[in-house]
Amino acid sequence: MKFFGVVDTTFARFDMGHSVMDELQKMGTGFRIIRYTVPGIKDIPVACLRLLREDNCDIVVACGMPGSKPLDKISAQTASNGIMQAQLMTGRHILEVFVHEEEAESPGELAWLMDRRAREHAINAYYLVFDRAKLTEKAGKGLRQGYADVGPVEESGGGIRH
Amino acid sequence: MKFFGVVDTTFARFDMGHSVMDELQKMGTGFRIIRYTVPGIKDIPVACLRLLREDNCDIVVACGMPGSKPLDKISAQTASNGIMQAQLMTGRHILEVFVHEEEAESPGELAWLMDRRAREHAINAYYLVFDRAKLTEKAGKGLRQGYADVGPVEESGGGIRH
Amino acid sequence: MKFFGVVDTTFARFDMGHSVMDELQKMGTGFRIIRYTVPGIKDIPVACLRLLREDNCDIVVACGMPGSKPLDKISAQTASNGIMQAQLMTGRHILEVFVHEEEAESPGELAWLMDRRAREHAINAYYLVFDRAKLTEKAGKGLRQGYADVGPVEESGGGIRH
Amino acid sequence: MKFFGVVDTTFARFDMGHSVMDELQKMGTGFRIIRYTVPGIKDIPVACLRLLREDNCDIVVACGMPGSKPLDKISAQTASNGIMQAQLMTGRHILEVFVHEEEAESPGELAWLMDRRAREHAINAYYLVFDRAKLTEKAGKGLRQGYADVGPVEESGGGIRH
Amino acid sequence: MKFFGVVDTTFARFDMGHSVMDELQKMGTGFRIIRYTVPGIKDIPVACLRLLREDNCDIVVACGMPGSKPLDKISAQTASNGIMQAQLMTGRHILEVFVHEEEAESPGELAWLMDRRAREHAINAYYLVFDRAKLTEKAGKGLRQGYADVGPVEESGGGIRH
Repeated sequence: MKFFGVVDTTFARFDMGHSVMDELQKMGTGFRIIRYTVPGIKDIPVACLRLLREDNCDIVVACGMPGSKPLDKISAQTASNGIMQAQLMTGRHILEVFVHEEEAESPGELAWLMDRRAREHAINAYYLVFDRAKLTEKAGKGLRQGYADVGPVEESGGGIRH
Repeated sequence: MKFFGVVDTTFARFDMGHSVMDELQKMGTGFRIIRYTVPGIKDIPVACLRLLREDNCDIVVACGMPGSKPLDKISAQTASNGIMQAQLMTGRHILEVFVHEEEAESPGELAWLMDRRAREHAINAYYLVFDRAKLTEKAGKGLRQGYADVGPVEESGGGIRH
Repeated sequence: MKFFGVVDTTFARFDMGHSVMDELQKMGTGFRIIRYTVPGIKDIPVACLRLLREDNCDIVVACGMPGSKPLDKISAQTASNGIMQAQLMTGRHILEVFVHEEEAESPGELAWLMDRRAREHAINAYYLVFDRAKLTEKAGKGLRQGYADVGPVEESGGGIRH
Repeated sequence: MKFFGVVDTTFARFDMGHSVMDELQKMGTGFRIIRYTVPGIKDIPVACLRLLREDNCDIVVACGMPGSKPLDKISAQTASNGIMQAQLMTGRHILEVFVHEEEAESPGELAWLMDRRAREHAINAYYLVFDRAKLTEKAGKGLRQGYADVGPVEESGGGIRH
Repeated sequence: MKFFGVVDTTFARFDMGHSVMDELQKMGTGFRIIRYTVPGIKDIPVACLRLLREDNCDIVVACGMPGSKPLDKISAQTASNGIMQAQLMTGRHILEVFVHEEEAESPGELAWLMDRRAREHAINAYYLVFDRAKLTEKAGKGLRQGYADVGPVEESGGGIRH
């Protein structure tokens, strides 16, 4: 039995935690999900750490929506650094699913993007725990979570500046 | 019996520590509050750590007012990173209640905002310790501390660029 | 018997370490001071750590003068992060007394500011070790070290945007 | 028997992991390679840590392609800081092979650069593990990975401002 | 017997490691020097850590030449943070001798500056290990490594804004 942690916030404008849980449940069985909601993105890292340490989660999907102001960008960076540190303290993955409010051009698109990116990272989390080879098959393929994949580039064989 | 820590500064221009303590006392009983005042925001993290470690607090509310100059923004980032680290060292939440001096347009609004945000985070601290389910009910609802909530967004169902 | 550490640099253009020691000695007795001079601000954090760990200091006052160029600002940030980390590793305060060269408009003002800020933080250090209640009395009062205090703000009771 | 770890991402637009492995195999024998693919660059550091700790790798080559947007630059910085920390936690090298998408002027050049830089860092990794003296021979020689080496500078002997 | 570590890179355009070693040898006897060359500045911190831990060095002089592009500035910051962390992990000094490529106006000046700054920090390293009082004599004197010292400032006694 594996354990998936899901962390989300009351600050975000879409229920990404629900999207992650819904998508995970479509992927298969053999795991349980534990959810932990905090006020804002800077509260996420310690929640992840508690899920990994106290609830023994194998992985955590951390959902957040940084606001669009300059101060929000700094907060996002602090949160990301904390998520990084929590991973290194536990040796386990925390997939950061952040959608910055300004990435979308309308409220409808924002909701769509938050749902989509959360679901695609839920799939990544599933593979990291159950089937890492699936990710190696896609190495260097220019995959994206949310908007469309951009695909790989190829050497053209001529005219390179060097 | 639970213990709530409150850290504040002599640099701030409003007594946010008082607001937090006053609001917490309205929430219920079954806890005690320990206060620790330091000169400036960069002194906050180690004060939080001492409250969590030496006084065995279950959570800390850390109040500060970063000044409006570029150097103050760097100090705020350093302080935030320290608060993050203190959380990860102890596995306990520190709610960072920072009001940047330039967020408000007048001294009166600044005082109002500092009081308001401090009180709303006191409530968050209470729920994190006593009733986490209350926060999950509000996941993705676009809540804010201080100014009005912005509310959730919804998928519009059409016209999304992707 | 308490121990106060003082760290300063050969890079700075005023002997802030002397100012700190002179002011501390005016505050009272019951403590000893240990001084540690390093080349530049990025050498400060490990000097603080050694004073706290090897010399068992109760607190350190760390004096530095970041230069005015963009690269100097990055160095100051690195130094501040190191000072933060040294505090969290030891659970003891390090008061960072940095005067940025561009804060003052003339060499004379720079010297005055470095002396003044060093002395006012020496007083803060004294209270953190011997009488923390003195700081709580001043919580939210808008105190500054060096230039004049700005004082507290008050809620105006009307006309707040929210 | 030595162990080389290779970490890469599904986000990147070229299979740098393959380039590293191919080049390493040309260098000699006496080692084995373990590959670990993750979704994006912020997932790299904990993968490196697991290779170093759980698989006992002697070194890791960490391949990533940060995107060209401002948010991608912040992600790259978070990833780099995590890679740094993982090195310090284990006392072993992780060679960061990042190609920023905007470094190249065309898709063909991007592919060429990603392949080239990956291969040249594979050689560095080989020397760090098997023959460090080879690197000391090249100290201060202005070497580059990907584009052409820039070479050393020499004191001109006159006209220096100081 | 003391041990001095010297770390340098193949990326730099001048052999600063040689300058440090040459200058150290002029300072006196009673120590041995261990050199460790890495590809670039982000590889420096773990090399320092290994010299401090595995080779039991008393101090390390870390030489690097960050490039002039914006991405190079981020790399320098990551490297500096790693050097800071390695110092705090070991409680020993690492003198960071970085010369940014754009600090000099010509290749000849760059070579001169790299040589000069390396030598002056070698002297600092020597004093930190053998004679710390020499540094305290120069506290607040406005010393610089490379270009000329700027000297101290003095209080003018009048016309200060405060």
